[in-house]
Amino acid sequence: MPDTDRDLLPEGLCDRLPQQAWASQQVRRVAHDVLASHGYERVETPLLEFEKSLASRMAGVQVRRMFRFVDPASLRQLALRSDITAQVARIAATGLAHAPRPLRLSYSGPVAIIKGDGLDPARERLQIGAELIGTDSVAAAAEIVEVAIEALQAAGATGVSVDFTLPDLVDTLSAEALPLAGSQIEAVRKMLDAKDAGGLVDSGGAAYLPLLYAVGPFDSAIQRLAEFDVDDVLASRIAGLREIAGRVGGKARLTLDPSERHGFEYQSWFGFTIYAEGLSGSLGRGGAYRILGRAGEEPEPATGFSLYPDPLVEALAAEAEGPKRLFLPLGHDPQVAARQRAIGWATVAALSESDDPISLGCSHRLENGEAIPL
Amino acid sequence: MPDTDRDLLPEGLCDRLPQQAWASQQVRRVAHDVLASHGYERVETPLLEFEKSLASRMAGVQVRRMFRFVDPASLRQLALRSDITAQVARIAATGLAHAPRPLRLSYSGPVAIIKGDGLDPARERLQIGAELIGTDSVAAAAEIVEVAIEALQAAGATGVSVDFTLPDLVDTLSAEALPLAGSQIEAVRKMLDAKDAGGLVDSGGAAYLPLLYAVGPFDSAIQRLAEFDVDDVLASRIAGLREIAGRVGGKARLTLDPSERHGFEYQSWFGFTIYAEGLSGSLGRGGAYRILGRAGEEPEPATGFSLYPDPLVEALAAEAEGPKRLFLPLGHDPQVAARQRAIGWATVAALSESDDPISLGCSHRLENGEAIPL
Repeated sequence: MPDTDRDLLPEGLCDRLPQQAWASQQVRRVAHDVLASHGYERVETPLLEFEKSLASRMAGVQVRRMFRFVDPASLRQLALRSDITAQVARIAATGLAHAPRPLRLSYSGPVAIIKGDGLDPARERLQIGAELIGTDSVAAAAEIVEVAIEALQAAGATGVSVDFTLPDLVDTLSAEALPLAGSQIEAVRKMLDAKDAGGLVDSGGAAYLPLLYAVGPFDSAIQRLAEFDVDDVLASRIAGLREIAGRVGGKARLTLDPSERHGFEYQSWFGFTIYAEGLSGSLGRGGAYRILGRAGEEPEPATGFSLYPDPLVEALAAEAEGPKRLFLPLGHDPQVAARQRAIGWATVAALSESDDPISLGCSHRLENGEAIPL
Repeated sequence: MPDTDRDLLPEGLCDRLPQQAWASQQVRRVAHDVLASHGYERVETPLLEFEKSLASRMAGVQVRRMFRFVDPASLRQLALRSDITAQVARIAATGLAHAPRPLRLSYSGPVAIIKGDGLDPARERLQIGAELIGTDSVAAAAEIVEVAIEALQAAGATGVSVDFTLPDLVDTLSAEALPLAGSQIEAVRKMLDAKDAGGLVDSGGAAYLPLLYAVGPFDSAIQRLAEFDVDDVLASRIAGLREIAGRVGGKARLTLDPSERHGFEYQSWFGFTIYAEGLSGSLGRGGAYRILGRAGEEPEPATGFSLYPDPLVEALAAEAEGPKRLFLPLGHDPQVAARQRAIGWATVAALSESDDPISLGCSHRLENGEAIPL
């Protein structure tokens, strides 16, 4: 029990003790190995950037959620990164602007926000992600969903499910088939996101009501969405979703919630959220988006995902086991000890007569060159 | 060339592109594997803490070098971590206060400071470290130096050398054999650190002059230090250094600079700096220190090291090579592709007819289930 202030950590920040940290290391390693095996090359980004850089590459990045402060060196506003995707977008638009497309990049690291949300008070999270830059095609979306599922499953997630959405659904429908006044669009989006039928009618979006029923297991929901789409303005999106579902359907349970918008502030035609059995909240999300270019340049299409595997790490920590520990008594032969490490032991060398192998977590003790059970 | 502000990164902060990031990943993995093999269990610490917590566990931690700002949640001052050692000390004193000693912990992650120094403008660095908590014995120091050398060598450093120092040398000598006025101690320390013979005499430390010559290759320098130590107040330290040197001498070139103080603000009797051939600046340092306990409690002795391997990462990046890349044409068999990944290929799937295997870095192409050179 902490007896002074200095023992406390700020709200929403915490340590990982050995079991959790081991699980976290394994999740990161395994996920990165999967991403690398699909051709995603890792990049690393700084913890801090100019606030303006973090906000300017993608629509919908919210600087007010970031820790911000003035840089004593430049006297400009810095922000602690809250989302590595925006940084990778900057790299794609600058240092790797001339790298051939499609460009596959991956990353991981801690990100921080000034305030947790009601359900999750955490203000620091591990983010692991992959971005496929130069395309937002259906093939790109299918690869991104597949790789996200594979990375989570390899890291230990089971019962994975993926919920698809169409982030620009209201924009698309209101521009073509179901016109809305400019002032109504945001309200209709919100009511759909909140699944509020009454509010939807009140905000002038009665024509959008059937969308509230195109929700649930993928096959039936996409069927209802297609029936609703009498003018075929969603036809290419519906076909795209069906193609993606065909590719990944054997690997995860699929659902559709076409008007889900929360968390997809920067996604364009396609978005998805990924879950695993027994873990509360989502493990990540992704979709298609656009990287804003220089003045006068077209935005570049991209597709990617970000995983936030902290709940998986916590679940795995209970069973996480590092290497077995071998106690090395005082005066042991260092060559023999090195050989034991080479075959996978973690050795724990005695530093004094009082070091106790069992309380130090050792299962074996080195005797006459051999590991003897304690 | 950046054409707008948003393309720029703040001074002292940078990205790692794929080759650098690959090298960085390999250095971290290999170093952590070495630490784990010696029984050091990983912990993870938050990016941010209360300024007071970061500063209160160890003497000499300088909060003015940290990025600091008010936490909107607690309205208290937070700091971005500048040194993970202080956080691990907090864990040892709180969450792991009752874990058996000696307690071996390891960690890694980015740390940030508000201002680089003249030689190194970096404001963010990778820190990898190990702490052996509960002892600052000669045996602990020898293990810590050995593990630091092994971690760096396994990560690719060659021509490793270790420079030993005695951080509390002036305190020890002035308390016993060579008294100084309280006001002189800091000046004498500084002049010794600066190797300024004239300044040393001017500041009243003429008796300390011979220390300036007890510097250089370990064997001869320790001999001169022993000759200087006529009252034997350093005898246990000299014997300790000789014992450590005996253990690690075959693995690295050893030097002694007993009055070196810079960078050892929190070390007690023993400190070391570690270098590798061809890399400018040091790769890390370590030594014995004390973790400040609760009011009325004794400080706990500890020994550890911190590596800052960025120069090594940069040197390795030039030769770093990720897995070989195999191009998967449109319509490839996904099962065959998965088998190729399982045997070590990074696969790069075509997303459209225009994807070019060679510009995407592939050396081979999948044809009839086989990897064919391009």
